[in-house]
Amino acid sequence: MSDRKIEILDTTLRDGAQMEGISFSVNDKFQVFDSLSALGIKYVEAGNPGSNPKDREFFARYKNEQRQPAGSVLAAFGSTRRKGMKPQDDPGLADLMSADTSTIVVFGKCWNLQVREVLRVSLKENLSMIEDTISWLVSNGREVIFDAEHFFEAWRENRDYALDCMRAAARGGAVCICLCDTNGSTMPEEVSRVTGEVLSELEGVKIGIHCHNDTGMAVANSIAAVLAGADHVQGTLNGIGERCGNANLATIIANLELKYGISCLPEGKLEHLTPAVRNMAEIANIVIPNGEPYVGISAFTHKAGMHVDGVKKNPSTFEHVPPESVGNSRRFLMSEIAGRAAVLDVIHRIRPDMAKDAPEVARVLHKMKELEHQGYHFEGAEASQELLVCKELGMYKPFFNLEKIRIASEQPQTGEYSAYAFIKILVDGIDETTAAEGEGPVNAMDRALKKAMKVFYPQLTSVRLTDYKVRVLNADDTASSVRTLIESTDGHRVWRTVGVSTDILEASWQALVDSLEYKLMRSKLGWED
Amino acid sequence: MSDRKIEILDTTLRDGAQMEGISFSVNDKFQVFDSLSALGIKYVEAGNPGSNPKDREFFARYKNEQRQPAGSVLAAFGSTRRKGMKPQDDPGLADLMSADTSTIVVFGKCWNLQVREVLRVSLKENLSMIEDTISWLVSNGREVIFDAEHFFEAWRENRDYALDCMRAAARGGAVCICLCDTNGSTMPEEVSRVTGEVLSELEGVKIGIHCHNDTGMAVANSIAAVLAGADHVQGTLNGIGERCGNANLATIIANLELKYGISCLPEGKLEHLTPAVRNMAEIANIVIPNGEPYVGISAFTHKAGMHVDGVKKNPSTFEHVPPESVGNSRRFLMSEIAGRAAVLDVIHRIRPDMAKDAPEVARVLHKMKELEHQGYHFEGAEASQELLVCKELGMYKPFFNLEKIRIASEQPQTGEYSAYAFIKILVDGIDETTAAEGEGPVNAMDRALKKAMKVFYPQLTSVRLTDYKVRVLNADDTASSVRTLIESTDGHRVWRTVGVSTDILEASWQALVDSLEYKLMRSKLGWED
Repeated sequence: MSDRKIEILDTTLRDGAQMEGISFSVNDKFQVFDSLSALGIKYVEAGNPGSNPKDREFFARYKNEQRQPAGSVLAAFGSTRRKGMKPQDDPGLADLMSADTSTIVVFGKCWNLQVREVLRVSLKENLSMIEDTISWLVSNGREVIFDAEHFFEAWRENRDYALDCMRAAARGGAVCICLCDTNGSTMPEEVSRVTGEVLSELEGVKIGIHCHNDTGMAVANSIAAVLAGADHVQGTLNGIGERCGNANLATIIANLELKYGISCLPEGKLEHLTPAVRNMAEIANIVIPNGEPYVGISAFTHKAGMHVDGVKKNPSTFEHVPPESVGNSRRFLMSEIAGRAAVLDVIHRIRPDMAKDAPEVARVLHKMKELEHQGYHFEGAEASQELLVCKELGMYKPFFNLEKIRIASEQPQTGEYSAYAFIKILVDGIDETTAAEGEGPVNAMDRALKKAMKVFYPQLTSVRLTDYKVRVLNADDTASSVRTLIESTDGHRVWRTVGVSTDILEASWQALVDSLEYKLMRSKLGWED
Repeated sequence: MSDRKIEILDTTLRDGAQMEGISFSVNDKFQVFDSLSALGIKYVEAGNPGSNPKDREFFARYKNEQRQPAGSVLAAFGSTRRKGMKPQDDPGLADLMSADTSTIVVFGKCWNLQVREVLRVSLKENLSMIEDTISWLVSNGREVIFDAEHFFEAWRENRDYALDCMRAAARGGAVCICLCDTNGSTMPEEVSRVTGEVLSELEGVKIGIHCHNDTGMAVANSIAAVLAGADHVQGTLNGIGERCGNANLATIIANLELKYGISCLPEGKLEHLTPAVRNMAEIANIVIPNGEPYVGISAFTHKAGMHVDGVKKNPSTFEHVPPESVGNSRRFLMSEIAGRAAVLDVIHRIRPDMAKDAPEVARVLHKMKELEHQGYHFEGAEASQELLVCKELGMYKPFFNLEKIRIASEQPQTGEYSAYAFIKILVDGIDETTAAEGEGPVNAMDRALKKAMKVFYPQLTSVRLTDYKVRVLNADDTASSVRTLIESTDGHRVWRTVGVSTDILEASWQALVDSLEYKLMRSKLGWED
């Protein structure tokens, strides 16, 4: 282990949001920030308060919430001042200041072609724009990181001018100058060489690296820069970003820590890497490729018989690092042993005495495979899974019988959509009929069911839904199957349930019923805390 | 452009088939072979005729078909002979010979730990196994490539023995010795250094490289080896393979040809790269990540306003190579951060004469930002976007008026969920009332609306839905907003529409209405082809 420490800046909320299909709500942005904070990422760059209303709202709410300083440092992002304007008169810089963050990332141009053709200012004016933007922000109490856009193109075409821009940023007081491979055009040996040359020209300045993955080299380039002396790495935890994405920080962090002994996260955080990446993917609603290095579900999965055999004898035969070191786990495919072991794990939570080879184990396994084939997914729905085990072990009796539920939605000539549900249930021979209105049919059904159940089970009063997700399976029609996942809480505990059907209401109904019955089952079995 | 030519070996049918979820039929294998042949890949490695009946059938059929020698060279794959056996008596080698290919890839061990613990033979016996397996195959008219398994681990632990193995393969008559980073554990600078050292020790032998992507370095490592002198690269065209995949040949080939001027394919083939990769993905039934370097659908897609602007002025500002050079194409996206240029692009599809600074452009931009803030997402929904532009430009008149729609779902005591919708619409003062049953309420609504509309617009008969997606926004309750995306086709053209609401039925309704009105709008504006 070396003593080197690298500073990580995550730009999921800014550069990452440039990816096709990505759109973060203000709540999503808070979740991303919290997730990165929990992992110990030093800086979180979160957009430009001037560019759109969502970013403005995010910064305003962040400021009001007065977050603990223990988490990541929030940074706003903006450009150098406009030409011919003083920093104090520039509305863009005023927006940036209004974000009220301690750190600001300023990007500027250093490629002579861009300065002339895009900015349309003289090379000299651009130098002043860089220097006095930074020095004004610094004099107003901000820490400034300078992102040198198109740095490698600039270096190829006019090395001296690119260096002049760096020096202007350093004179302005930037704490770090970040070399941006904006187009993702540069190869590792060039990144390495140029980083080394910049460092030897600009002594005492911290150099950063910001790569894009257009040639599949973003990780290699970032590491090449670090090995050449860069101490600050920008990217996105999941590698999302415009075009082919930004440098994937998860891969970079794991490589630097495990292959080079260079630390990027606080001690003990690396083993939270996989859950953090998966959580970020949920928030962004993207799918992590199975084969994603270190954190993908297949990253430590063995299929070939010979490999399974080898790994069982000695994991180092086909695993380059232990999966637990990054919070992932080993899987063997096509292996009854693996399936059985996992199911047994759940069964033992409910019946610790169950023998490994009991027929019930095979029965539960069989049922679970059948349901997964239909589209159920128990990995994110432990409560439904435990209920299923209770059912298969004969430990379950329904807590109510549904007599009838009817849900209606309508849109009259000029009005809004409205939805209501009426329901009749039976508990121990006593019936309860009630109805509820809702924002949409699922919400109406949810409210009506809870209203009826609470009459018999007052302990359900504390239960509320905290998350509701819908995924269309094999979508080729409005008649496709959907899977709904529901997360519930009673204030102490959180649990998740699942339903699958071609009818979204039926799928939601299954997950809702499981949610309430799970709570009741826990009381009945005496598991309540 | 240098004069160097690199030999490519694709192992999609062997190492690629080890990936979770991949299974090729015999017909699939022929399609893969033909696709790689058409691209000009030199070698296609296709498994072991002894390992399973599908491989056996493939080789037998290939032999019978007497393919033109113009395509790729088919290679069979197998291991060195068993211990204590003569090559001519070894059933595995007999299987290999039975494939009747001109080229055979033989893999063998060179890591002392593996030789002792897995093979359980002396280091010396392993050397004979390598040498006499190869020399026997060569004496039987075969060209042999030797894959040195776990080469980099072997080198780290016992450099001399690893070299002895290479020398045994060379004495046996192997035309190429391939250094395999079997565990994907090695970093580029080590690959570079070791490849150089091997080359200086074994003069006159062609060296190959075979990498896995466990650290996200498979592409960088393959190129590092080539720059150090390797002339043969193994991988899979799409990067599929066990765990994190094999080296992605598409990225390697594009990088070597475009960044280093080192040729890998026959002249003129590089511009077929993207269609070839997409065709392979179809055969393997895998999804290519949007951001896949060079060949992904987002690889040359621009979203940020400033970037769209820059690329329109000069593509080199945000594109490292021309998209056509690899058979891909440029796209501009719309979004909350997109600027005027992208909006203008859409407007110009509808009103080619519109001036850049017309007030309508600002109005459309404003409206679009507002809707995106509510959760609409137009980049996957060009049809809704074009309709929106028509509405803002005053070119839209509703094709119908909704009088009433009522949707009902119910579950009686013992039955399945059932859903039906009844609808009343007005077109030019004439009303139509109808109803439909469906699998779930969305499907019922979809059917009822189409039924009513077809009475007035028979051209809608050919329209059908091909995809339906639901995403819950800010999910914290069943009352959360949802966004639905619908893809429709009339058999000629495909279009996509979007809807957002707290009510999934209303969101679906918006997308459904847009889908039908878009089709009608196209006819009305005379765009129909």
